[in-house]
Amino acid sequence: MNTSPRPTVRLRPNAEARALRHGFPWVYGDEIVTDRRTRALAPGTLAVLEDAERRPMGLVTVNPTSRIAARMMDRDPEAQIDADWIAARLRTALALRDRLYPDPFYRLVHAEADALPGVVIDRFGDLAVIQPNAAWAEAHLEPLVAALVAVTGVNRVVKNGQGRARGLEGLAEETVVLRGAVDEPVPVRMNGATYMADVLGGQKTGLFLDQRDNHAFAARLAGGGRVLDVFSHVGGFALAALAAGAHGALAVDGSAPALALAEAGAAASGLGDRLETRQGDAFAVMEDLASTEARFDLVVCDPPAFAPHRGAMDAGLRAYERVARLAAPLVAPGGYLVLCSCSHAVDLARFRTASGRGVGRAGRRAQILHTGFAGPDHPTLPQLAESGYLKALFMRLDG
Amino acid sequence: MNTSPRPTVRLRPNAEARALRHGFPWVYGDEIVTDRRTRALAPGTLAVLEDAERRPMGLVTVNPTSRIAARMMDRDPEAQIDADWIAARLRTALALRDRLYPDPFYRLVHAEADALPGVVIDRFGDLAVIQPNAAWAEAHLEPLVAALVAVTGVNRVVKNGQGRARGLEGLAEETVVLRGAVDEPVPVRMNGATYMADVLGGQKTGLFLDQRDNHAFAARLAGGGRVLDVFSHVGGFALAALAAGAHGALAVDGSAPALALAEAGAAASGLGDRLETRQGDAFAVMEDLASTEARFDLVVCDPPAFAPHRGAMDAGLRAYERVARLAAPLVAPGGYLVLCSCSHAVDLARFRTASGRGVGRAGRRAQILHTGFAGPDHPTLPQLAESGYLKALFMRLDG
Repeated sequence: MNTSPRPTVRLRPNAEARALRHGFPWVYGDEIVTDRRTRALAPGTLAVLEDAERRPMGLVTVNPTSRIAARMMDRDPEAQIDADWIAARLRTALALRDRLYPDPFYRLVHAEADALPGVVIDRFGDLAVIQPNAAWAEAHLEPLVAALVAVTGVNRVVKNGQGRARGLEGLAEETVVLRGAVDEPVPVRMNGATYMADVLGGQKTGLFLDQRDNHAFAARLAGGGRVLDVFSHVGGFALAALAAGAHGALAVDGSAPALALAEAGAAASGLGDRLETRQGDAFAVMEDLASTEARFDLVVCDPPAFAPHRGAMDAGLRAYERVARLAAPLVAPGGYLVLCSCSHAVDLARFRTASGRGVGRAGRRAQILHTGFAGPDHPTLPQLAESGYLKALFMRLDG
Repeated sequence: MNTSPRPTVRLRPNAEARALRHGFPWVYGDEIVTDRRTRALAPGTLAVLEDAERRPMGLVTVNPTSRIAARMMDRDPEAQIDADWIAARLRTALALRDRLYPDPFYRLVHAEADALPGVVIDRFGDLAVIQPNAAWAEAHLEPLVAALVAVTGVNRVVKNGQGRARGLEGLAEETVVLRGAVDEPVPVRMNGATYMADVLGGQKTGLFLDQRDNHAFAARLAGGGRVLDVFSHVGGFALAALAAGAHGALAVDGSAPALALAEAGAAASGLGDRLETRQGDAFAVMEDLASTEARFDLVVCDPPAFAPHRGAMDAGLRAYERVARLAAPLVAPGGYLVLCSCSHAVDLARFRTASGRGVGRAGRRAQILHTGFAGPDHPTLPQLAESGYLKALFMRLDG
C-alpha cells in the first residue's frame, strides 16, 4: 500500500536531531518545516523524515493536527508498513511476555516502548483489546488485527476507542468487536484470583493489568488480616489479598457495575464469602468509617488520576494528601497503607511528599517499605522513562 | 543507667524544628546551640532536645564530633534506653520481617527507619551481624546484644565494625564475635539457592540482602539462557538465575575469596556444574569477552559504589556509563541487561541517563522493563526516602 513515492517532512535546524538518532521517538510540531504541503498531509500519512541537511533519518507517521507531529516508525525510510512488518514487532513483544508470564494475560503491546507507536494491546487469553491511539494505527487497523490474530492465536478482538489519547490525535471515540463475539465479562487469572474484565464497557481496557505486581506485593502484607480497598474498581487489590489469605476485605468504589464485577470475581475465585462491597464516594466512605473507628490491617487507595496533566498538578497533590490523611486513621497500629497515583503530572518525589504530609496530618508516622511502578509488560523507553505514570507507595504505620 | 539528670541541647531559632516534629530524625551541628558544655559531651551521650523556646522535644543521642550532632531516640524525653526499650523496637522490626519472609534471613534492623538510629542488624538464621554505626549504639552494645538474643533467639552474634559510617562517627574499626562461635561461612537460603556468607571477612555484613528482590526479578528473565554476572561478589545474581533454570552462568569479580564463596554456594545449591568463575578486573574482562564476541542472554553488572559521596558524582556517572557501554555488546539480540548502582550520590534519573547513554554508545536500543530498589527489609523514612541508595534497571536490548 506504500508503493507510490513517499512524501517527505524535514526537520528545522533547531530540532533535536541528535535525540531522535539516539532513540527519542517523537517530533514535535515546531521541529518540522510546516509548509502548505506538510499541513495538507492526512493524519496517519507515512513519510520520510529528513534532517535539516535533507538526509533521510527514517520512516515516520505524520499527524499535522497533533502536538506530536511525527512518530518514528522505522529507522529504514524504505520500510513497508504491512502485516509482515507489524507481525515482526508483535513477535518481539510476545517473546518478552512469554518469558515473564506463565499464562496469556498481560499487556502485549505498550505503544512506543514496544515499537508500535500509539498502539496499546491487552491480552486476556483468547481475547485481545486493541487501542489504536495514533492516526496511523487507525488507518492500518485491518493489517494490525490480522497480524495480531496470526501471531498470538487470539480469536476475539475488541477495538477500544476511548480515552484522552485519541482525542489528542483527532480520532473519534468508539468501541466495537472486530473478531468473534463478546457478550460476558472475561475471566482473568492473576495472583491466584480470578478477575472479571468488562472489555466493552469498562475503564481502560477492562482491567488494570499495570498494577499486577503491586497487587502481589500488597497481598504479601495481607495474610490473616482485614483489608480495605478504596477506589477498588473490580477488586484488584482486594481479591489478590483474599487469595493470599486475608481474613476479609471491604471494596469501596463509586461504580456499582465495577463492584458487581468484584463480587463476581470473588465468587469465581471461591472467595465470595470474604468480600464485602460498598458503593459510594470514596472520601465520604473513608470519613464515615473513621467515625465508627473502623480499623484495617491493610488499607489500599488507588484513585483515578487526580492530575492527568500539568495544569491539574496542585489540585491533584492536594487530593493525594487528602486521600492519605483520610486513609491513615483507618490503619490499625503497625498495619500497612498502600497509596497509588496514576497521574502523569505528579512525579514520585511529589507524590511521596504529599502522601507523607497527609499521613503526618493524621498524626501517624510511617516507614516506606517498597515503591512499585507499572509491571514489566508496560515497558518504557529510556528517553521517556521520566513520564512513568504509575507509582505505588507501600508504608507501614506506627503502633 | 540514665537516672541522673540528663543534659540538654537546645535548637537554634533557625533550626528545622517543624521537620523534626514531623519525623525527621536528625539535628545537624549548625542547628544546635554549641556552648562549651555541649561540646564537652561524650559521643553517644543521651540528652533532652529542647526547641529554641526551651520546650522539650524528645530524647536524643548527641555526638559533637559528627555532622549529625543529634539523633532522635524517642519523642518521650523521659524514656529509659535500656534492654526493654531496645527489645520493644526489635519486636516491631521483627514483626515486619516475619510477615515478609518465610525463613529468618533478612535485614532485621535498618537504622533510623526501624527506630534504632545508626544500628544495622542482618540476620542469617541463628546468627546475627550487628553494625553499631552510631556512638550511642557502641556505648549500649551490651543491652543491644542481650535484647537481640532475647527477641530473636539467635545464639551467635558478630559485631561488624567496618565501613565509612563508623568513621564519620569517630568510631574505630573492629570485627569481633560477641556470642557463640563462627568459624565457617554461613549458608543462607534465598530465591531457591544457597549462598555462602563470610560474616567475619566479607563486604558489608557478608551478603547483599538488599538485592534479593532484584535477584528474583533477574531470575525471571534467565530461564534456559546463559548469564554473565559482573562484579558478582558471592554470586547473588548468578546463583538465583541458575536456581531459576538458567543454562549456565559466568561470575566475574576482582576478589578470589568472593568467587570461592560463589562456587561453594553453587555446590551447596546443587548447581556447581553450571557456574564458571573468572577473577579479574571487571572492565578488562568485559573488554576481553567482547573481543571474543561472547554473547549472553542476561548480563548483570552490580558494581561497587562509584559515587559514594557528592564529590565523586561526575566520575561516578562516567564509570556507570562505561559499565553500560562495555556490557551492552555482550547481550545477545533481544536479551536482557541489568545495571545496578548503590551510590547515594547518584539519583535514579542520573543513573538512568548515564546507563542509557552507555547503551546507546554501544549501538544498542533498550526498553526499560522494571526499576528495582532495596528490598522491603531495608525500609526508609519518608523524610529520607530521596537518599535511597540502591537502584537496579532491568532492560531488554534490541534484536
